[in-house]
Parts: sequence; C-alpha cells; structure tokens
Amino acid sequence: MSKKQDSTKGFTRRDMLSGSTKVAALAGLSGAAAATGVATLAENGALGIKSAQAATMARGEVAPGDLDEYYGFWSSGQCGEVRILGMPSMRELMRIPVFNRCSATGWGQTNESRKVLTEGLQPETKEFLASRGGVWHNGDAHHPHMSFTDGTYDGRYLFINDKANTRVARIRCDVMKCDKIIEIPNTSDIHGLRPQKVPRTGYIFANGEHRIPIPNDGMILDEPEKYHAIFTAIDGDTMKIAWQVIVDGNLDNCDADYQGLYAFSTCYNSEGGVTLEQMTSSEQDWTVIFDIKAIEAGVKKGDFKEINGVPVLNGQKGSRYTRYVPVSNSPHGCNTAPDGRHVVINGKLSPTVSVIDVTKVPDVFADKIKPRDCIVAEPELGLGPLHTAFDGKGNAFTTLFLDSQVCKWNIEKAIQAFKGKNVNPIVEKIDVQYQPGHNHSSMGETKEADGKWLVSLNKFSKDRFLNVGPLKPENEQLIDITGDKMVVVHDGPTFAEPHDCIIVRADVVNPSSIYERDDPSWEDARNWAKQDGIDLEDAADVIRDGNKVRVYMHSVAPTFSLEKFTVKQGDEVTVIITNIDDVDDLTHGFTLANYGVAFEIGPQATASATFTADRPGVHWFYCQWFCHALHMEMRGRMLVEPRAV
Amino acid sequence: MSKKQDSTKGFTRRDMLSGSTKVAALAGLSGAAAATGVATLAENGALGIKSAQAATMARGEVAPGDLDEYYGFWSSGQCGEVRILGMPSMRELMRIPVFNRCSATGWGQTNESRKVLTEGLQPETKEFLASRGGVWHNGDAHHPHMSFTDGTYDGRYLFINDKANTRVARIRCDVMKCDKIIEIPNTSDIHGLRPQKVPRTGYIFANGEHRIPIPNDGMILDEPEKYHAIFTAIDGDTMKIAWQVIVDGNLDNCDADYQGLYAFSTCYNSEGGVTLEQMTSSEQDWTVIFDIKAIEAGVKKGDFKEINGVPVLNGQKGSRYTRYVPVSNSPHGCNTAPDGRHVVINGKLSPTVSVIDVTKVPDVFADKIKPRDCIVAEPELGLGPLHTAFDGKGNAFTTLFLDSQVCKWNIEKAIQAFKGKNVNPIVEKIDVQYQPGHNHSSMGETKEADGKWLVSLNKFSKDRFLNVGPLKPENEQLIDITGDKMVVVHDGPTFAEPHDCIIVRADVVNPSSIYERDDPSWEDARNWAKQDGIDLEDAADVIRDGNKVRVYMHSVAPTFSLEKFTVKQGDEVTVIITNIDDVDDLTHGFTLANYGVAFEIGPQATASATFTADRPGVHWFYCQWFCHALHMEMRGRMLVEPRAV
Repeated sequence: MSKKQDSTKGFTRRDMLSGSTKVAALAGLSGAAAATGVATLAENGALGIKSAQAATMARGEVAPGDLDEYYGFWSSGQCGEVRILGMPSMRELMRIPVFNRCSATGWGQTNESRKVLTEGLQPETKEFLASRGGVWHNGDAHHPHMSFTDGTYDGRYLFINDKANTRVARIRCDVMKCDKIIEIPNTSDIHGLRPQKVPRTGYIFANGEHRIPIPNDGMILDEPEKYHAIFTAIDGDTMKIAWQVIVDGNLDNCDADYQGLYAFSTCYNSEGGVTLEQMTSSEQDWTVIFDIKAIEAGVKKGDFKEINGVPVLNGQKGSRYTRYVPVSNSPHGCNTAPDGRHVVINGKLSPTVSVIDVTKVPDVFADKIKPRDCIVAEPELGLGPLHTAFDGKGNAFTTLFLDSQVCKWNIEKAIQAFKGKNVNPIVEKIDVQYQPGHNHSSMGETKEADGKWLVSLNKFSKDRFLNVGPLKPENEQLIDITGDKMVVVHDGPTFAEPHDCIIVRADVVNPSSIYERDDPSWEDARNWAKQDGIDLEDAADVIRDGNKVRVYMHSVAPTFSLEKFTVKQGDEVTVIITNIDDVDDLTHGFTLANYGVAFEIGPQATASATFTADRPGVHWFYCQWFCHALHMEMRGRMLVEPRAV
Repeated sequence: MSKKQDSTKGFTRRDMLSGSTKVAALAGLSGAAAATGVATLAENGALGIKSAQAATMARGEVAPGDLDEYYGFWSSGQCGEVRILGMPSMRELMRIPVFNRCSATGWGQTNESRKVLTEGLQPETKEFLASRGGVWHNGDAHHPHMSFTDGTYDGRYLFINDKANTRVARIRCDVMKCDKIIEIPNTSDIHGLRPQKVPRTGYIFANGEHRIPIPNDGMILDEPEKYHAIFTAIDGDTMKIAWQVIVDGNLDNCDADYQGLYAFSTCYNSEGGVTLEQMTSSEQDWTVIFDIKAIEAGVKKGDFKEINGVPVLNGQKGSRYTRYVPVSNSPHGCNTAPDGRHVVINGKLSPTVSVIDVTKVPDVFADKIKPRDCIVAEPELGLGPLHTAFDGKGNAFTTLFLDSQVCKWNIEKAIQAFKGKNVNPIVEKIDVQYQPGHNHSSMGETKEADGKWLVSLNKFSKDRFLNVGPLKPENEQLIDITGDKMVVVHDGPTFAEPHDCIIVRADVVNPSSIYERDDPSWEDARNWAKQDGIDLEDAADVIRDGNKVRVYMHSVAPTFSLEKFTVKQGDEVTVIITNIDDVDDLTHGFTLANYGVAFEIGPQATASATFTADRPGVHWFYCQWFCHALHMEMRGRMLVEPRAV
C-alpha cells in the first residue's frame, strides 16, 4: 500500500467538509466552523467584525478549524527536542524528542529509541555511558534544516545538531520521528549545521566549535596552541561521515551555496585563545570557504590522515582546500541569499555585515584575487548583527542583538554603496522584544523564498508576559513582511530555547497518519517475533528463554490482548506491543506502574521496552494515551512471583 | 529584603512605560506598542480594524506586548511536567519539570532536583531505583490544583499527582519550581487529587486508583478479592501523610466541600473485577463520602492500623468514616459547585450527572436518610459525561466525551426537574473537536468563579491541524461563556496531554523575578561552602577532599569565575555555581560538553551537579542559557589528567 493511500485510510471530518470548506473560505469564514455550527467571530455581526476578521486573518490569525499555511520546524536549544509549529498561527503542533528523554513517548527507554540513541556513538562514549544508563539524558539542539533537492526543500528529512554531546540527528518527515543520531569523532561540540542545497542533500555540513587536542586522551591538556577545530561533511542518506577538514580558529555557523561547489563557515577566535580577552583581542577574524570538489579529489587521492575511521584533511591556512576571508572580529551568522549569488556574514562585534559574491570565489581559490576581494558589500546596520533572512525580492533582514531590532536592507543598494555610490541600503528598522538571535523568513533559505513571514527569535522576554518566576520564557515574534512596513503581529513565549527555525510551505511536507507495518524502526521486534514464531499483529504470548521473558501483546481500544502475565522476580522482561488500531490519531500507550516503564505505540506501530522484574507483587499496566471512553479500564496486571526466601 | 522589593529590583521596560500603557489601554491600544512604535493592527486604519480589534481582544486576542488576564496551570499528562499558560491568549508561558527529566534545566540531574526527587520515596523504591539512575525518569501527571484559603486560591502552592509511579508533588508559586515530591505508600497509582478548600489547604486528598494487595510483596498475587484501593490525606504544609482510608471499589476522581467537613470520591469497579467485562458489569457503582472530622477523631483515638508509618483506617462499606452513595455505572468526574452546596458526579457510562446536596450529607452519616437521598438532581445530558465546570451564576458545563460536545445546563432547573417539574435544565450544547475529557472555567473550582472562560481539553485533534505524522496533538479549545451563546474562539494544539487545568486570576499569583540568596533549595550547597570556608557569591575555588573535588564558581555575564580547573580521572567532581547577576530574566547555564552535565542557574541562585570524571582530556563547559552578546565566549575548560598507565 502506498503512503498516499495509507494517510487517507481513515475517513476524516475534514474530507467530509471539504466542499463546504472551500465555499466558506471564499466568504472569509472558517470552513469547519461554517459547516458544523461552531460559532466564530465572523458570525457575530456587531462592530463590523466580519470584514475585520478577514484582515486579522491576513495578519496571522488562524480561526478555529482552519489549517496553517506553513510548517515551522523549531530547535528547542538546551531542551534537546525539535518542535513543529503551525504558521502563521504560531501554535505548537508537536514535540519530537531527539537528544532529550521524553516521559510521554518513552524516548530514551524503548528498545527502538535506545537503538537510535546508541548505535551511532563512538566506542569510548558507549563505555563512558555504560554506568550512566547507556544513553545521554541531555542535548543542546541548535540548527534544524530540511533536506534539499535542486535548491529547495524536498520534505524527506530534517537534520539538527547537538552542541552538548557532539552529535547530529536526522528526523524522518514521513512519521516525524528521529531515526538516526551519530556522534562526530575528532571534534567537540557541533554548532553550525547546514545541508547541501544543490544538487541535493547530499552532505550535511557540521562545525565542531570548540578546539580540542586530537586525540583528546589527556596527553595534551593546557596547551591550547595544540587544539584544533574540525569541519565535518556527513552523508545525509547514510548518516556516515564522508570527510573532515581541520581549520584554524573556532568554527561557528555555516551555509552552502546554490552551485554545489562551496561551503562557508564563520570563525571567531582566530587568536586561538581560551579566555574572553584572548578570544576577542584581534580586529579581524575570518570566514573559511571550503572547496567541495577539491576536498573530494583530495579524499580520492589519499591526501588525508585517517583518524577514528574518518579521512581528515588539513584545511589550515595555506591549504588548497580552503580560503580564509578576513572579516571583522567574531563574525557569527552565515546566510546564503535566495538570489543564489550572495552569502551574508554577520558581524556580531562589528556593526557591519559582509557580503560575499559566490561568483568571485573561483578566482579566490585560483589566487587571481585576494580573499577579501570576494566581498562586494559591507553595510553598517547597527549593533550586534547576528543572523540574516531574505524575502526573495532582494531584501535582507538582519537581527541586531544589542539594538533589539530587525534591520531590513537591500542587497543591491548595499553593493552600490560599497562601490562608492551615495545610496542608503537600510530600508527600515523595527524594535523586537528583546535581543534577537536567529531569525528566519518563509522558505527563506531556499530559492523559493516568498517574502511573506519573518520570525525573530528573541533571547529575552523580560516583562512581555505574565511573570512566571525567575525563569522567563524566550519570545519568538511573528512579523508580516509583505507590505512596505514590517508589522509585529504576534508575541510567542516559548520554553528554552527557540534557538533557530525554518519555515516550510505546507505542501512540501506530507506525513503519514498511520505507520506501515514494515516500518524499519521495529526491525528487531520483527526478528524476535520471527524467532519465537509469533505473529505480532495477533500476539498474546509469553515466551520464556531462561531468565529472559518476551511478552507479546497487541492492543485494540480499549484492551490489551493480555489481561495479566506472570514472571519471576529477577527475570529480564521485554514487553512488545503492537497497536493494531488503524484509525487516525489512535495512539495507545503502555505504562507499567511503579516500574518506570512508559511508551507510545502509534496506530499500526510496534514498540517495546526491556526491564528487570526486581519488584515482586501485583503491578498494573495501563494505556496512558487516551484512546476510548473506557480508556481507564484499558489495563492489566504483571504478577511478579517473589524469589524463594 | 522582601519578595516584593526583590521582584522589582530590575528596572523593567514595563515600569518605564506604565504611564503611557494606562492611557493607551483606555484607547484600546497595546500599551507597549503605542509607546515603542511597534506597529499593531490597531494602527492600520483600513477595514475599520480599530473598533474590531477591541472586539477581537474581548474574544481572546491578546495583542503583542499586552499581558494575559489569567494564569492557566496545566497538567501535561504522561509528559510529567506542569505548564503555565497565559489566558485568554492560550500561549504557553513556562514548563515546570516535575515527574519528567528536563534537558534544559537539569531537572533529574542537579543535586538540588535529585534531593526533591528522592527524599520522599519509600525505602524499597529507593533500592529499586539504585540500579536505574536513582530517580524515576517518567511520570503521568493528571490533576493540578492550587492551595486554597477560605474557599479560593491563595497563590502559595500547586499540587499534582503522578499516576505512573504513585506520587504527589508540590510546586512553589513564588519561584514556580517543584520543591517536594512524595511517594504514597500502601497504594498504587494516584489518580484523583484535590486540595481542601475550607478553612485552608490543609489537606491534599489523593485517590489510589488501582487495587493491590497490602503489603504488595508477592505473597498475594492473582487473588483480586484481596486487593484494596486507598484514599490518602496529605498535609499540604509539611507534605507528610496525615492518614489513609481503605475503601471498596477503584477510586477515581475526588473533590472537597466548602464546609471543611467532607470529601467525595467517585468509584468505579464496585465489582472488584480485573477485566473490562467484570469492571463494567454492574448497573451501579458509587460515590464515597469521607467524614473528615470523624476520621480525625478516629486517628486520635487510635482506630487504625499503622502500615509503613501511616495510620490506615478502614472505610469499607459499613464504616463510620464513609458512606457509599449509589450512582450509575462507572462515575468519573467529581466537581463541587461554587454555590458551596452542590457536588456534581459525572456519569461516564450513564448519560446522566448526579447532583449531591452537601447540606443533606450530615443526615446520611446520621443514618436519618439513605445515601441516595442526598442526590437532588440527575439530569440526562448526553453520551459520556466526564467532567463539569461552573460559571458561578448557577450554570454548569459538562463535557460529553462520546458526543464530542459541551453541555451547558442550569443546576436549579435540574433540581426542579428532579422534583418532577416540567423544566428542561439544558441551556445549550456546542460541538468541540474532539472527545473532551476535563474542562475548566475561570476561577471555576473556587467560590470566586467568574463565568468568563471555559477550556475544553479534547483528547483527539484528528484533522484539526496540519498533519504532523501518526502522533497528533491533543486540542484544547477556549470557549467564551460570557454571552447567551458559547463561542469557541481558539483551537490550541498541545503535546501529550492537556489532562486537566485550572484558570487563576492574574492578581492571585505573584512570583519573584530573582531568587533570594537564602532560598532553601540549595541548603546543601550552603552547608558545603560553609565547611569549605567558601563565600558562594565570590567563589572561584577548587577544594580537594580525597578523590572528591568541589569546584565553586560564580557567574557574571559573560564569564564564569574559573576559566579552567583540573581534576584527575576517576575523581568525584561536584560543580557548584552561583549566578550573581541580579537582572530580571538573566538566567545562566552550565553545560559540561561530552559529560552529559547541563543545568540552569537562575538570577541570584546556586545550583550544582556531581559526576565522575571518567574521561581524560580537555572538556569545555559553557553557558547554554543565552545571556549576552558574548554568550558563546562564556566558557572554560575542565582538564582531566589521565590515570597513570
């Protein structure tokens, strides 16, 4: 059965209403509301609300029952998860656990998630974690980006980095679950991350931010001059590391071009310092440009050292694989414009952004021009420029951290001004609340940038919301950029931390509503069942294998196929559950009370967890994902026979 | 320094704007917007938006920069956390980790949080968890309720239950952090939870839902007739268990009266069954009424068995402490009306709700009337009545799970109808999307119910939002109940699971913005520092004590007071950090990369974590809560000397 068919298997209320929805939409009404009798503002004639509602909706309002136009994929920073927002409503639609532990889904506990969390770790890390529960319990997610084909999003995967424990994760967009996490060896603390845009993803470029000794085994300690940072290219299809390049300085953010030739990384701390004073002492740092084809050729001809199984090339100053373009002290954001030609390097400690013209980069590598000569504009925008987004109409929007502003400026005018013409590239500045970091525009990192919405991800909210104690939310503000003036239309408080996001047109993303029974995520369970002669979809079996017990159940709301099962104290028990309900939104759960076991089982999915039955007695298991009027009665007992005393 | 002074220590932008805010508010504009130049819809003259905006805001719109009027305190179900929402905007303002692990705050990892998570556990549970990281990693939070004084919220504490691992937690509303978690002995899987309303909280009443043998040591296994459920009263001030009462049937939800005399619990499974068929076979189950004064007297005179240190009274049928009021099969919600007199028992499997008149209960206990005679109304509302909220004007709002509706009905009319008068108590029904469980009205569980807003917490969203894969969000809908007709004004998707909530007037809640230095949560750190002769606020010290190393730092954006520290491989290291920044919203963090250590340090707070330095080499620590333009440079190194080889 194809995924297309699968996702429409359930007959939904929306299908039924689709006709009337269209008519109602034309009249500016909520489709579902009009058809079902749920009252909306528009039905309330007082104060001319009807016409006003249409205007409000155009400004970001999404009425009850209406669908958003964009998916927002959000990093959660030190929370470690990925969030999906609907836009322009700015409503959080889903959390995807990735680097964190999740009580609701059992991420970090199920056998399926533990496989994802452990199989890509380095051997030394597996050993380190053995006494710590076997998995990392935290992460620091920064930069979520979707896979590309031909310069725009293709809806296959999301990728995101973990700065805390040096990892890169992949999320399948068909089921919106993480399927691969790899630890990047030879480096520390992955920060900047971007996918290759052309011809496709292809590579994921990942910056190891902090400089460390290689290998970091304690033989070198307080000798910072022997530390290195490493740039990594990961194969996005296999999630294997293709190659690494050693660079000078601390790697910060990165981006790829629209030609498939180069990648760009900002570097701060060209000084190689370890204190704040040392790291910010120089007038200039640099942007490193990586020549992808040259590096691939270098790998092919063996010009590398293999370290921990990865080909590592030397890209330090003077290397054929890189060029170092001097820019002002501590550049930060790195953003390729949808015009396919310009890359904006954001100044951070300098009030300027530096614009690289990609068409000049071949001459830089050929040493026909100096590295600085690929910079074609350097407008002064304000204090603390961190990141830049684009509207696809030639304008750029740069966050000014210290000024708490977004600055809209015109790229072509900035180029003219750089040439000496008397033009002001700055179009408009507006206040945001407060201290913006990343920003992002609708489809803005693709060649299909549409110039509709801008999100400013602000690091402080201060007094902007009801006081919730010493820990405040951040504030993500939605800005309408369609008109002559930017308009802030929504303040969105969020828990730590809306570090970065992308805004993707809804038609690009087409998830399934129900799992396919051959989904690869529970391959191990399929193999156990095969060995045990069990049909997962019809299982109600307890298989004993020495002191290992495999308990197979299936679930149909509101029952598990086993009302009880008996094990002996000390047994290693694996509970494997298959949810055979095939209705949209009919997720079941399995919580084994007072045993710390709880996980999600999606419609048509199989999930499992393994634990030791240390506690004797009667222990109830129950469904914790509300499924039926008799949901509370969906339960059973694990009877644990005590050890002979 | 008083908390009042503390919270206004920082000079906030809102303070500065307060004058203009008031003027602007009168004009129907956003105060901050009017004063700072952030454009709002109201400035856009087209389509008569100005007057319309006022109307929209009255319907739940909160413009950028405006504050909400209510705090919503939300259970997150199997997510294990508590959420704070602003209402009517329905924006999530904060997550408070409670029963879950939190990557961002270090909940479950810091010494301070581990003390909260472990000190209230039963000894056998501590032993069980020893090989599992020492703490539970999951929870199933259900019912958040605030402490009361004289029948209304007093802003001191929130309480919430954990069904998965049989716990009750308390959250301090001054800092919005959990300060106590206790495991309830002699029972399994706490479900219904409510605070005493009068004279104050006082007791927290907690229902042990699942019936188990007492003790549950494996001597009794498949003998359900020997299982029991237990009702527990916890002292909310000390978080010690006051007493427990054994009852017949499975305890479900509960509530307290406005007289300080009785508590009420719905019971299903009067059959004592263990399968779905057994549990739903009877025509009737019951509501148990507990006589608080009689139980207190019974404890005083020693009419109990002490089990695991708790006085346990027998409240089974025939006991002087309880009465069993027969109601239809499997009643669920239990809600005391703000009229102080009526308690609504929701039918679940019956289309009716049963209304108990509290003034008749003394006669029930005196055996002057039969238990059923305290029921004064039993209107038939529709299919699957689960929970009821109130508007303080004599109306009740009951969720109909199977009908996917909210039914508004009049209590007095229902009483008249029960007496035989020909009146229809049903005022109105509206559709909600889909399958509502709990609902809640603004201040609705207090004597100050104000009849402004109703939230319907719906278990399924299906096609109501952009498709995010097999796992869908739930849907919490905001309903305006001020007018003759109920109006759904907002659909709020949420991650698992908006199980229950309360809606509290903003003036009731007054959190601090900055910690007091004598906060009890880091008492242990204060004691270590005293022993080590360290001043926490000025610390930059490494104290070695055998193979234990205590590293004391303070932080001021953007620096830690130690740029590096050196330990030996195998040392047990405790890092203790004091954030001496005293600016609103200036939280710092400490992440020790590739060591799995990460936590939050609020303004003026101290926090700590302990770990073994297993990995030799250079390991960077950094601030992960964005604090400054040079936030990325706020870091240092832990140098771990390798073991001699």
